[in-house]
Amino acid sequence: MAKRVAGPEIEKLIQLLARLPGLGPRSARRAALHLIKRKSELLEPLAEATARAAERVGVCSVCGNVDTVDPCTICRDERRDGATLVVVEDVSDLWALERAGATNARYHVLGGVLSPLDGIGPDDLAITPLIERCRSGAVREVILAINATVEGQTTAHYITDLLSQVVTDAGPIAVTRLAHGVPVGGELDYLDEGTLSAALKARTRF
Amino acid sequence: MAKRVAGPEIEKLIQLLARLPGLGPRSARRAALHLIKRKSELLEPLAEATARAAERVGVCSVCGNVDTVDPCTICRDERRDGATLVVVEDVSDLWALERAGATNARYHVLGGVLSPLDGIGPDDLAITPLIERCRSGAVREVILAINATVEGQTTAHYITDLLSQVVTDAGPIAVTRLAHGVPVGGELDYLDEGTLSAALKARTRF
Repeated sequence: MAKRVAGPEIEKLIQLLARLPGLGPRSARRAALHLIKRKSELLEPLAEATARAAERVGVCSVCGNVDTVDPCTICRDERRDGATLVVVEDVSDLWALERAGATNARYHVLGGVLSPLDGIGPDDLAITPLIERCRSGAVREVILAINATVEGQTTAHYITDLLSQVVTDAGPIAVTRLAHGVPVGGELDYLDEGTLSAALKARTRF
Repeated sequence: MAKRVAGPEIEKLIQLLARLPGLGPRSARRAALHLIKRKSELLEPLAEATARAAERVGVCSVCGNVDTVDPCTICRDERRDGATLVVVEDVSDLWALERAGATNARYHVLGGVLSPLDGIGPDDLAITPLIERCRSGAVREVILAINATVEGQTTAHYITDLLSQVVTDAGPIAVTRLAHGVPVGGELDYLDEGTLSAALKARTRF
């Protein structure tokens, strides 16, 4: 429907930008024009950055993080606590936890959650590698930092079941999950009932 | 403030994506991850498209459009009506008119509008080249397709004044502007008073 108004090079750029999350066809055109107008300060550096990322970035064979080295920087870091494994759905969740500096543990990226309706079963996720990692012995606690959606909680239960059967030389592995509660800086007024009930139930002494 | 969680290649990519209009720091991270996960179908093509655009795309020395050839495809097109010149603020406006297939005329991109507060005077815009193009003789009508903002209208008046002094062998040049009115498919309820008044004033016979 949209008429092609620019040359094929520009059209190709617009089409690819439109496939980024957060950009539609209209904003992709705007972004392309923005890039073209700022050739030396933006378009050329972006061309270089994308080429370099395409060349060097890959998925970590241990945890599923993306990095330029395999195993990734976090997996290689000896100062990381190898006894604790934080299980996340996606690399973006790993990044979020790292930005928060919330933990010194290692990670395991599932690559999604169980979703029978979307045809996503245990074999589509990195669940078997997770169990293998735990069997290998060093892991003492698995923190399930999985989103509090129905699919996420189903996945958490499924993993908990599997992990309860793993007994290492040091005994069984503790499985924990993130606390539910009021977000720091959040206003009660804007919170859903589920969160409020959970926060009230899990109240702590002041 | 934001902690660096990924390697320098990924961070660089995120930083550059965050400078695109419509993407903030958070959505840039999401976009970078989206790209990295779709290496062969998205990241590599984007690297190629940006490199190619950086290499080939430039500004048309005649009209100010962006294209891989100079003069641009529109300026080269012999079927275009050389007697009519549509003056726009920005290349994006040119693209919008072309998408609409609204005119067969040629274009002239000003590169902005007069804005004393932002320090943008006549010399910062392609106004002198416009007058030169009109002096050369072929142009019979100049359509000012400039946004209906205060700055836009000031710019339109300024250009009209200058053009009124241009007299070619074929007589003076007609200066016109876009009609104001109700957008096609628009609902009256959502329109501002200025547009409604203009539409009522410029009413036509049914």
